[in-house]
Amino acid sequence: MQIAIPIYEGFTALDAIGPYDVLSRLPGAEVVFCAEERGEKRTESAMVGITADLSLDEVPSPDVIVVPGGTGNRRLLDPEGGVPRWIAQVHPGTTWTTSVCTGSLLLAAAGVLDGVEATTHWAARDRLAELGAVPVTERVVERGKVMTAAGVSAGIDMALTLAGRIAGDVVSQAIQLGIEYDPDPPHDTGSLEKAPRELVELVETALAQEDARSDELLTGAT
Amino acid sequence: MQIAIPIYEGFTALDAIGPYDVLSRLPGAEVVFCAEERGEKRTESAMVGITADLSLDEVPSPDVIVVPGGTGNRRLLDPEGGVPRWIAQVHPGTTWTTSVCTGSLLLAAAGVLDGVEATTHWAARDRLAELGAVPVTERVVERGKVMTAAGVSAGIDMALTLAGRIAGDVVSQAIQLGIEYDPDPPHDTGSLEKAPRELVELVETALAQEDARSDELLTGAT
Repeated sequence: MQIAIPIYEGFTALDAIGPYDVLSRLPGAEVVFCAEERGEKRTESAMVGITADLSLDEVPSPDVIVVPGGTGNRRLLDPEGGVPRWIAQVHPGTTWTTSVCTGSLLLAAAGVLDGVEATTHWAARDRLAELGAVPVTERVVERGKVMTAAGVSAGIDMALTLAGRIAGDVVSQAIQLGIEYDPDPPHDTGSLEKAPRELVELVETALAQEDARSDELLTGAT
Repeated sequence: MQIAIPIYEGFTALDAIGPYDVLSRLPGAEVVFCAEERGEKRTESAMVGITADLSLDEVPSPDVIVVPGGTGNRRLLDPEGGVPRWIAQVHPGTTWTTSVCTGSLLLAAAGVLDGVEATTHWAARDRLAELGAVPVTERVVERGKVMTAAGVSAGIDMALTLAGRIAGDVVSQAIQLGIEYDPDPPHDTGSLEKAPRELVELVETALAQEDARSDELLTGAT
């Protein structure tokens, strides 16, 4: 089973690596990182790079795709662009088509989510609706063979759910124990619904600054 | 503030990227991935590579270190080896010295944990004790400026705790909301204490196979 994770300049590392570290433990699974062009892609902060070993053209028929989010994908939403076009091409042949965080915007740009209930990062729900999907607030949304996860860390929960669908609950439970996923966050502010309003506003401001900084990094402007 | 994450062939991606995606959001923080020699390091499955932008020698005085685990570090536990020697050199000058999963074995090899309470992946507690530390079963263990996390995913909880110590609770809460960390795992089998005995045995067998496979990958044997 080939599981493809398409990355790009300005993706969010944890969106990709959370699911990677779950799904790479599935018996018989091969996880491949791919991109429009092979080579290192930097994350949205540009502080680290992850290697795409294959180009998208070299991954024509993955069984599963996991599309990560990241501020960098705002410039990739043209349906004729490389990533959405690849998603549209491979989706009919996948067993599962999935996304984490704003990766769902790329699924939507590819036409996969037209009228389909899906999720994304809480700050991108309006954008997801503009692209034709029907945003819902669940952390992991499964509709047919399309599974979408909420922001960043939700990819771990999604990947464990997906592992259960692919290989059964015992394997999923074993992977959860293997990565010692017994979460114990220090606060209870991890969702839009639970966080106080002033915290949400603080983060919205920070995210806007992050978008601007990421744009600067990606365009080389200072 | 410079936060250094030393990586090596056969590290666990999520051990490093969980904390990275939390700590890279700290205002004013620069996160650097480093290794004995610059360049791409492959994870324990070898299915993906992450770039070390700097050599350890080029990171002589980090403010914070986060040492990830991974089956590859079993061959790095010689106190005179590059990673333990670097840890021993930089530790006196850090504000925080931290680890995720079996990264604590490297801290122990460096002499940082002699007689100190610490944690590690549940399957490595005996090994941690052999190296002079005092294993405890908490998910995040803070003793002075040394903070250790349990297996793999625990690095996210640790990094949020660390973010709070460094920049205060509001910043930590904002980061938690930013990465939408409101975990909802599909099972309740994520710790040694919660998992049924037969599941633990299944995972112990899988981990032993993974160790052997990782050894093969690292040595080039087939």
